[in-house]
Amino acid sequence: MDDKLFDFRRFSSHKITVPGHFHPIAVGMREVRMQNGGTTILYDTTGPYTTEGFVPDTRRGIPRLREAWHPAGQEFHTQMWYARRGIVTPEMEYVAIRENMGRPGDGTITPETVREDIAAGRAIIPCNRRHPEAEPMIIGSRYLVKINSNIGNSKLGSSLDEEVEKALWSVRWGADTVMDLSTGENIHAIREAILRNTPVPIGTVPMYQTLEKAKGRVENLTWELFYETLVEQCEQGVDYFTIHAGILREHLPAALRRTTGIVSRGGSVMAKWMNHNNAENFLYTHFDEICELLARYDVAFSLGDGLRPGCIDDANDSAQFGELKVLGELARKAWEHDVQVIIEGPGHVPMHKIKENMDLQVKYCDGAPFYTLGPLVTDIGAGYDHITSAIGGAMIGWYGTAMLCYVTTKEHLSLPNRDDVREGVVTFKIAAHAADLAKGHPGAAELDLQMSRARYDFRWADQFNLSFDPDRARKFHHEMIRENGADHCSMCGPDFCAMKITKSIG
Amino acid sequence: MDDKLFDFRRFSSHKITVPGHFHPIAVGMREVRMQNGGTTILYDTTGPYTTEGFVPDTRRGIPRLREAWHPAGQEFHTQMWYARRGIVTPEMEYVAIRENMGRPGDGTITPETVREDIAAGRAIIPCNRRHPEAEPMIIGSRYLVKINSNIGNSKLGSSLDEEVEKALWSVRWGADTVMDLSTGENIHAIREAILRNTPVPIGTVPMYQTLEKAKGRVENLTWELFYETLVEQCEQGVDYFTIHAGILREHLPAALRRTTGIVSRGGSVMAKWMNHNNAENFLYTHFDEICELLARYDVAFSLGDGLRPGCIDDANDSAQFGELKVLGELARKAWEHDVQVIIEGPGHVPMHKIKENMDLQVKYCDGAPFYTLGPLVTDIGAGYDHITSAIGGAMIGWYGTAMLCYVTTKEHLSLPNRDDVREGVVTFKIAAHAADLAKGHPGAAELDLQMSRARYDFRWADQFNLSFDPDRARKFHHEMIRENGADHCSMCGPDFCAMKITKSIG
Repeated sequence: MDDKLFDFRRFSSHKITVPGHFHPIAVGMREVRMQNGGTTILYDTTGPYTTEGFVPDTRRGIPRLREAWHPAGQEFHTQMWYARRGIVTPEMEYVAIRENMGRPGDGTITPETVREDIAAGRAIIPCNRRHPEAEPMIIGSRYLVKINSNIGNSKLGSSLDEEVEKALWSVRWGADTVMDLSTGENIHAIREAILRNTPVPIGTVPMYQTLEKAKGRVENLTWELFYETLVEQCEQGVDYFTIHAGILREHLPAALRRTTGIVSRGGSVMAKWMNHNNAENFLYTHFDEICELLARYDVAFSLGDGLRPGCIDDANDSAQFGELKVLGELARKAWEHDVQVIIEGPGHVPMHKIKENMDLQVKYCDGAPFYTLGPLVTDIGAGYDHITSAIGGAMIGWYGTAMLCYVTTKEHLSLPNRDDVREGVVTFKIAAHAADLAKGHPGAAELDLQMSRARYDFRWADQFNLSFDPDRARKFHHEMIRENGADHCSMCGPDFCAMKITKSIG
Repeated sequence: MDDKLFDFRRFSSHKITVPGHFHPIAVGMREVRMQNGGTTILYDTTGPYTTEGFVPDTRRGIPRLREAWHPAGQEFHTQMWYARRGIVTPEMEYVAIRENMGRPGDGTITPETVREDIAAGRAIIPCNRRHPEAEPMIIGSRYLVKINSNIGNSKLGSSLDEEVEKALWSVRWGADTVMDLSTGENIHAIREAILRNTPVPIGTVPMYQTLEKAKGRVENLTWELFYETLVEQCEQGVDYFTIHAGILREHLPAALRRTTGIVSRGGSVMAKWMNHNNAENFLYTHFDEICELLARYDVAFSLGDGLRPGCIDDANDSAQFGELKVLGELARKAWEHDVQVIIEGPGHVPMHKIKENMDLQVKYCDGAPFYTLGPLVTDIGAGYDHITSAIGGAMIGWYGTAMLCYVTTKEHLSLPNRDDVREGVVTFKIAAHAADLAKGHPGAAELDLQMSRARYDFRWADQFNLSFDPDRARKFHHEMIRENGADHCSMCGPDFCAMKITKSIG
């Protein structure tokens, strides 16, 4: 592992912890020491990697944080089960403290509001009891917009070490969850290594491994093979599963007439299976059994949008919204089992059609958190789809989407490497933060204010340290100005600095 | 000059021209030959550089296209003068054909609608008669959203050759106008070289050169020195001037109380001048004289927002909107002189406050085209401000902004180099196109449709050639797949391609 990866001392920042009031928890955050003597607290996803003295050993894994919170032998229930019975778990208190980023809070986010939201299905804390390494985090429209980083190999490339490295790169740059979408060799071992070394919830699409077991042939797929794979992944510790249970036979005619058909891998597999077997989607018909299994581990559903639009021309069509309605029905069924649920959303959608997606999702899915892939606001951004999707992601986050799946520059073209992961994560941290600002999350504006004061004071180091990618900001600045103390920037030079001129007035 | 810069044969595309019906004009466009035998027409900003057989010689400059349209000795009037008298000029017909991108058009954009919009002040064609090298283009909310690329040196760096190269890079990647914001050495010579070699309108902020003449001291600034500079730049051929005539003494108390004060260079200079001389802004008090001068060349006003917010905390404040009201008053005065006008806008604005900017601009400025810098939707994106601004730019473009000034990755940190210009221009082409799609520009959706059909057919070369940066798209794809003919992409590998699976159904 790159030994500078988690060295945040370079950014004048260090890990602090805030203790719980009700539970023996210590919530990690990052404190930046500012040049003017102040401090700023940042949300932090790096887990033990930034704890003073921690020595990473990817063979052994990271500490099993949540194990101590739940005595062995205690009967296990999901977060939703507890929430509905009025019980604030350590996980709920943890995320409440975390969301307030160490500030006293303005009272809008408390352990009790967290509990209410979990009970109502408006938020989830993905936390498989078999993945105690993960720090609790919350996904819901009232909270900070979260971002997910997709990693995983395909038949055409990438190894176990590379995938673990991409997972750690993701959390180093701020990913709130990581999905392992491996479809190539060694799926089980790669996932094991990621789970044991990553301090954020891990999601998967179990159909990928199932299809691998079926030797890549949809004809060989069975419910039994799928269920066996679910059990394997529950046991291993996966925190949420994308399951394409909402795509039904009735949707297929409209989907197959589209300009780009079905662009979800899981969706296309189920469509082919239904067509081949002349039968309804087995994920739909066996949904109760899946709920029972997930409840035993507190694995959350991420109900997959197998019919998300793959191009502008297909956005908001009857196939897409028909499936969305079914996803709402399934969410209500999962809640009957106290299983937590988020709903996946598009895809490719032009800006003027984005809001309808959010409005219908809230309507059909009774406020279950929305988790979107972008949306990408045009189809023609090849090589720049981190940007086409950040535009749509920021907007839909503002409208209420709880988590954004990042998209990298390589989307539609190739698999992301380490640098692409970094650029994708930072881009989506920015989109998510823009959404937090616009929706008025308590405290989001504070970061912008600190940054702008640093800018007006020419405190360059503070500007670098408060940005999402301090290395890059510093590097760009130093290309033209070698010292930190300049009272102007290299864009304008000494005579044309507007801020400097402003200060000289009156 | 990089001799591959304008070699579009690599992208299976070549220059075509469409003749006028009323005037002896030939409008350049680019035609892409598709793998399936079809063609797609792209808007093209490259001027003579992509004309078969053209040999560039930056010492001699490019052909003086518009000279032949206006016989020597003919009395000169502005486009607005003609439009108000019912006359469709060659420039108006040119942009009407150009906007329809070679399609027959659906009748919403005709030479007559262009004339009406120019007459009403709802659109402008920046075209100083002393810059006949520039191809006509139109800026107005009904038309394709345009983008501007800022180049120019500062005391801290860059030379004449570098700046000409950045101007040509800008148009190669699709910039519709270029602003030369040089504040360093050699301003006159750099501008001359850019004007003689660039086929798009050139804008400047004449205050920068005026201040250079005043040896960088606001105390030395006079109206006479400014006017002399305006004459110099009108004669040279600058097509539009940013003039900060709307910032008045009454605005200063509020502006100086802000978190980041005044962040417009021109605005801060005028503020300091007013304060030092205890006098009203001379650009405001001499505005009629400026109008008379600009009318003689058809130089357009870009009325500068000297009080644009420089941070989220200052967005939409009384200083900003107070100045905007004055800009509307000045626009009406310019129109009395038949001078064309666009209005500059912010800046740093969170998403939920963007629309108010557009609504008030339309209200205060009677529909004069809006030209914004972003807006940047958060302050903390240092190193990624092309993205924070593309998010805001796409949104405000959708709401009706006519032109977006690009922002590069180096914003707030350093001057952009050639690669930064490319990334900035392409990013803003994408934001502008997303806005065109959302506002329903006739023909914008056609590009997305062609791209998506190519994607569904696995026509990889077509996907590269239809994207804004074919080199980058091709490079990314070839990192993992060496041939063009794959019927799947490297993200999914052969067994997991959703499109391939979809096609195998039914």
